[in-house]
Amino acid sequence: MTAVSQEQVRKAVDEELLRRLAAPEGREVEQLDAWWRANNYLTVGQIYLQGNPLLREPLEPRHIKPRLLGHWGTSPGLSLIYAHVSRLIRHTGQQAIYLAGPGHGGPALVAAGYLEGTYSEIYPHVGQDEAGMLRLFRQFSSPGGIPSHVSVTTPGSIHEGGELGYVLVHAFGAVMDNPDLLAVAVVGDGEAETGPLEGSWKGVSFLNPERDGAVLPILHLNGAKIAGPTVLSRKDPAEVRSLLAGHGYEVLEVEGADLPGMHHRFAATLAEAWAKIRTIQHLARTGEWDGTRPRWPLIVLRSPKGWTGPEQVDGVRMAGTWRSHQVPLSGVRDNPEHLAMLERWLRSYRPQELFDATGAPTEPVRALAPEGELRMSASPHANGGLLTRDLALPDFRDYALEVPKPARTRAESTRRLGELLRDVYRDNPDTFRLFCPDETTSNRLGAVFEVSGRAFAERVTADDVAIGRDGRVMEVLSEHNCHGWLEGYALTGRHGLFATYEAFAMVSASQTVQHGKWLQEASRLPWRARVPSLNVLLTSTAWRNDHNGFSHQGPGLIQVVLTQRGDVARVYLPPDANCLLSVADHCLRSRSYINLIVIDKQPQLQWLGIEEAVEHCARGAGIWDWAGTDDGAGDPDIVLACAGDVVTMETVAAAQILKERLPGFRVRVVNVVDLMTLPRPKDHPHGMSGTLFTELFTDAVDVVFAFHGYPGAIHQLVHGRPDADRFRVRGFVEEGTTTTPFDMTVRNRASRYHLVMDAINNAKRLPRGATDLMAWCERKLAEHQAYVVEHLEDLPEVRDWVLGDWAKQG
Amino acid sequence: MTAVSQEQVRKAVDEELLRRLAAPEGREVEQLDAWWRANNYLTVGQIYLQGNPLLREPLEPRHIKPRLLGHWGTSPGLSLIYAHVSRLIRHTGQQAIYLAGPGHGGPALVAAGYLEGTYSEIYPHVGQDEAGMLRLFRQFSSPGGIPSHVSVTTPGSIHEGGELGYVLVHAFGAVMDNPDLLAVAVVGDGEAETGPLEGSWKGVSFLNPERDGAVLPILHLNGAKIAGPTVLSRKDPAEVRSLLAGHGYEVLEVEGADLPGMHHRFAATLAEAWAKIRTIQHLARTGEWDGTRPRWPLIVLRSPKGWTGPEQVDGVRMAGTWRSHQVPLSGVRDNPEHLAMLERWLRSYRPQELFDATGAPTEPVRALAPEGELRMSASPHANGGLLTRDLALPDFRDYALEVPKPARTRAESTRRLGELLRDVYRDNPDTFRLFCPDETTSNRLGAVFEVSGRAFAERVTADDVAIGRDGRVMEVLSEHNCHGWLEGYALTGRHGLFATYEAFAMVSASQTVQHGKWLQEASRLPWRARVPSLNVLLTSTAWRNDHNGFSHQGPGLIQVVLTQRGDVARVYLPPDANCLLSVADHCLRSRSYINLIVIDKQPQLQWLGIEEAVEHCARGAGIWDWAGTDDGAGDPDIVLACAGDVVTMETVAAAQILKERLPGFRVRVVNVVDLMTLPRPKDHPHGMSGTLFTELFTDAVDVVFAFHGYPGAIHQLVHGRPDADRFRVRGFVEEGTTTTPFDMTVRNRASRYHLVMDAINNAKRLPRGATDLMAWCERKLAEHQAYVVEHLEDLPEVRDWVLGDWAKQG
Repeated sequence: MTAVSQEQVRKAVDEELLRRLAAPEGREVEQLDAWWRANNYLTVGQIYLQGNPLLREPLEPRHIKPRLLGHWGTSPGLSLIYAHVSRLIRHTGQQAIYLAGPGHGGPALVAAGYLEGTYSEIYPHVGQDEAGMLRLFRQFSSPGGIPSHVSVTTPGSIHEGGELGYVLVHAFGAVMDNPDLLAVAVVGDGEAETGPLEGSWKGVSFLNPERDGAVLPILHLNGAKIAGPTVLSRKDPAEVRSLLAGHGYEVLEVEGADLPGMHHRFAATLAEAWAKIRTIQHLARTGEWDGTRPRWPLIVLRSPKGWTGPEQVDGVRMAGTWRSHQVPLSGVRDNPEHLAMLERWLRSYRPQELFDATGAPTEPVRALAPEGELRMSASPHANGGLLTRDLALPDFRDYALEVPKPARTRAESTRRLGELLRDVYRDNPDTFRLFCPDETTSNRLGAVFEVSGRAFAERVTADDVAIGRDGRVMEVLSEHNCHGWLEGYALTGRHGLFATYEAFAMVSASQTVQHGKWLQEASRLPWRARVPSLNVLLTSTAWRNDHNGFSHQGPGLIQVVLTQRGDVARVYLPPDANCLLSVADHCLRSRSYINLIVIDKQPQLQWLGIEEAVEHCARGAGIWDWAGTDDGAGDPDIVLACAGDVVTMETVAAAQILKERLPGFRVRVVNVVDLMTLPRPKDHPHGMSGTLFTELFTDAVDVVFAFHGYPGAIHQLVHGRPDADRFRVRGFVEEGTTTTPFDMTVRNRASRYHLVMDAINNAKRLPRGATDLMAWCERKLAEHQAYVVEHLEDLPEVRDWVLGDWAKQG
Repeated sequence: MTAVSQEQVRKAVDEELLRRLAAPEGREVEQLDAWWRANNYLTVGQIYLQGNPLLREPLEPRHIKPRLLGHWGTSPGLSLIYAHVSRLIRHTGQQAIYLAGPGHGGPALVAAGYLEGTYSEIYPHVGQDEAGMLRLFRQFSSPGGIPSHVSVTTPGSIHEGGELGYVLVHAFGAVMDNPDLLAVAVVGDGEAETGPLEGSWKGVSFLNPERDGAVLPILHLNGAKIAGPTVLSRKDPAEVRSLLAGHGYEVLEVEGADLPGMHHRFAATLAEAWAKIRTIQHLARTGEWDGTRPRWPLIVLRSPKGWTGPEQVDGVRMAGTWRSHQVPLSGVRDNPEHLAMLERWLRSYRPQELFDATGAPTEPVRALAPEGELRMSASPHANGGLLTRDLALPDFRDYALEVPKPARTRAESTRRLGELLRDVYRDNPDTFRLFCPDETTSNRLGAVFEVSGRAFAERVTADDVAIGRDGRVMEVLSEHNCHGWLEGYALTGRHGLFATYEAFAMVSASQTVQHGKWLQEASRLPWRARVPSLNVLLTSTAWRNDHNGFSHQGPGLIQVVLTQRGDVARVYLPPDANCLLSVADHCLRSRSYINLIVIDKQPQLQWLGIEEAVEHCARGAGIWDWAGTDDGAGDPDIVLACAGDVVTMETVAAAQILKERLPGFRVRVVNVVDLMTLPRPKDHPHGMSGTLFTELFTDAVDVVFAFHGYPGAIHQLVHGRPDADRFRVRGFVEEGTTTTPFDMTVRNRASRYHLVMDAINNAKRLPRGATDLMAWCERKLAEHQAYVVEHLEDLPEVRDWVLGDWAKQG
């Protein structure tokens, strides 16, 4: 689709409405300006004032905070946009949310929520009166207060102004399957330098105007970041246009600092952008769409950094430069000239017109804000738990694999999950999506394509399969986009799963961390309703990477999730298909967690029937009687514990070897599905009781623990459990290469033979035959070594070994 | 600068040379084609063959590998480019390296090194003969062999084909201060979907043609990734041009699959690109440059995925589609038709013309390759350790802070480092750079600007400070760019430091992981010379974030680095300025490590004089006698250990409280600078001996350990030490908000009062007065709590407390 034409707009949008929108009357401009001035006033107040909030008396040093912190520079631009979108909403009834990309626009967005009344509704002690305003000011950038960036505490936000680069991914995620929602996403020009942001413009290549809402990106080029200019602000405007048009947008531009001119021009441009969005949607929703990717509008706003603030301070230019990034006037308490400048600055907004005798916003200010849930600070879309409906989930037992006996069947476990997800798609046509960097099929989840293709708004050809504008499976070769879209989708109340290669989950690890922080903080705010969990499925694990090497091997994300608080962090290592189904069902029903699920996609031995799996997963960890030789009477000689599929196979094989070759040696096998059962209950809500822990692991017998990830993870998790030193952990110790799973276990000293030797070395008593068995294991490993050295000369025979049958090898 | 004109080219580049370059003679086209066919043959051979490598006999099932793994699709395009750049080098003597962005072009790049002879020089068992060729084939994607992606084992590579998105950052890093180097960077269209790649086009905005070399990006649009089309390949070509022009490039395009037409067109386009690069450099280096950002050339190559491979298989289109991504013909052993197709395919390259009776490349093939170090597979730039010179380092003692007594001076520690770095810049004008997301000044490293401004090729204005085309301090608001540039800079043999905010170091954590993997693997390859370390300085730590909140607080990168092998991972937590200087000096002298240094940038108490600091850092950990009450006779009652600046202050304060209020209670204070002294020597080369460990920590007294990062890190590090359970670790437990360092320690239960209570609770004996002291601590904490609750009403008094004087509070 080329850019929509004026004629198309005329057909789609009420002409009179559009005319009014584009050309605000004098009274409206006054309202816009009043609201904007009020917002700027409150922003400056937050940075500077601890007394005299309404400037009822001359400003004195004692009214100034002792320490000046905060960010002024980006704020006036953010609030100008907010004012104009609010007006748009009043005229059109458009549902909209506002995402402030510029990290440190916190005071402007807090002020917006305050002016709209939402802030006081949520935080009654910060009322719309003089005392409340003072609290608003004092809490800002103060110990125990709120930060200078948009945070979870900010009403109307689904986007933390912390780690930069995700404003567009959050916006695109929010509007997927949300046809009536407009996400206004302000992109800062500092943020625009990040990789994730630059890579996220392409969201339009995956949007369907018929079914999805719209994102209106507003690239705010105010020229500078902390200490210098930004790249985009110093490029020729034609180059910036070329770039954004290349990303697929129709570029509209507004530039200047003149008033009221900027109000008129921004209103007209915003009206044009909105009309084009509505026209695209109208065409798509009335069957007049040719199916090509729309050229969605985008606004480039060039306004000075620190606009309306001091032009010059101590003879140096301030507004329009990087110097106004944080606090333009410093040392105000001790510098009478600066104090006077601050007072002039504050009074330039004419607060007496903006706030009445009680300190409440006056009519012209209040008149701008939309009502109720149309206020962007009060939109339920930005508190998505309010809109969250449970998924319609089929009975996961219907997808179960028949497992009559352990270790007899081999199957691709994730394939069963794929079938489950297919039916989740079928039964939840607008509240569930799968996100994956082009590996859905590779990850054996391809069954979903029976219901939905991949989303793609660009051209498709006859050779393409399961892809097109109606698709709702999100594949883009960008972990950042996948992760961020899912975050936006979940924060607005819908459900999803991000499936990716284990090693490359680290690409978006910082997003996992930040989303976890969001959820942790939200869990302490009663007004934030719980949202669907962020479900992450890791496949192609470190232990099996047939044609890939060391760079593709790394279970680091487990380590990362373990750093989060127990109220959000969940890590599951289902050993087989039925456990995976049970775990997935649990995760898809859960709220406000980070659920990390790790399992290989290749054919693997199956252990448990579905009912056993359900029971095992419900406990999170349990003794596998059938695998061990522990008679239950008294402590075993050793506990072989395991978490993770490949190492579970090695553990069961080790137990088998011990059973066959050391009769009388009592081995207990414990499998852990839910890693968070290991810590103490006081450290994690899933932590098993001390009694149960002792039942599984005893309190004195040594435990040889074969772990999917880095061994240190287990050491830290069992710290504080009885005699934690007795846990001998084998895991991934950064020994990787292109090889088989079994060879990987050998290289990382976690093979069945290593486990047997560990068992013997750490057993309470050295049974008869132990020395022989140690020697046998060493021989086996030497044979394996010889095999590896030899195999290049004799590759065909490797086949069976590549496929790796534990029973045979055991 | 607009694109260079033909006239400028004529003045800068020898016309005759350019004419010859742009229009290869028939013999040259034959050479190009022969080399390309040879490469394609070897690529297919690697994927399929385990016997009959030269097709001396008809192909039989037994010649085929039992398991077919590898990636064909991107390879022919990669090798076409390689062939043409080789020819360019032969004509011009241009020093060039080749970076293959498409992850899975491994077989093509391995084949290139093999054809150039480099492979056999490095790996003599893979000789240029039939037996060697067979080894080449068999090792590929086989256990114990090499992966299907470009890896550390691939000669000529500084870029692993693993995690996608970094080909341009590596290329730009490689050419900085490398005026004669051309980095040919092939960008895959799958890779081009990633955020980091999209964000890295802007490298040209930071390049100086006078002093830096050039990057020639070749965007290879072959249309598809694993299972579907790519965004850029399906956009209108005009839109792609618009995008790339918007990034600042002059776009040259080649498209097709016709032969020899493609050779002619690609040769002409490559010649044009090279001539423009040389012209830009000529203008800049002869003083004819107007100083504006050059419009560097870029090539878009559109050639079919799987080009020259099977067009159709089983009635389905193969070449030109995603289906040729990996192995186009499957089941070749059991499918006679596929076997016949494979034979036809292999023979279509006419191997008998390409390899002689011994299996060595024939003259037309050999004729194309440049000689010696001009071969891209043999470039010393791609084995940068060969070119690495030690930095000229001033004596770090000259920057020392005067610290006559511990805990009397307060200073910004990183400011001293900034002065050291300034002089490193001065003394190493082309082998050292600092990389930082626009926070150099904020991080108190601004002294470097006395010697060098920030690099910036875009327009500068009068209000800008310390920025311009001659700058060599690299500031871009992208951790990905900073990290990747430094990687490229270091892998080509130069030194640098990446300074960033602690929490946002997670943005590039996966790069830290991948670079660590590179270094780990390289350390096992004797031919790879050791390169300068990757030095990472983290400031703005979790414990002090005045106007920022929870999103800015996270010491996660320590956790990440701890997962790496001991041969590369180093983590330092200098407690003060003099220790920082000593650590930094050590890191800047080191090779092939990941050196992580964590220290706050705000004024902090200073503990050690420079000579004490040197001694302390050399040991890595030591007893601070002056802080404790341990008389050295026998074990103390408790060990208070600490690692990290803020927690060190709390620990010293806790010891002080105990000294004053519990006379006779013997407290030992141990400070750890080098975190890697904690594990056992067998787990890390820095691990202190058992004897030393016992000297510091005893083997039975409880240790209260105050740690900068997540407590689990210490638990995993001390695992295996005597009675590791006795370590009670306090650290960052994800309790964050906008507040003071002291309040942060309270929230995370790591304050001096918590440490005192921990000391009493875990001491061998309960001394007289202990109960009172416990009560006192609880009172202190309650007072603090009250203070926090109260402060919003009474902010001025918070000032002293915000600034936090430990002595006063203790």
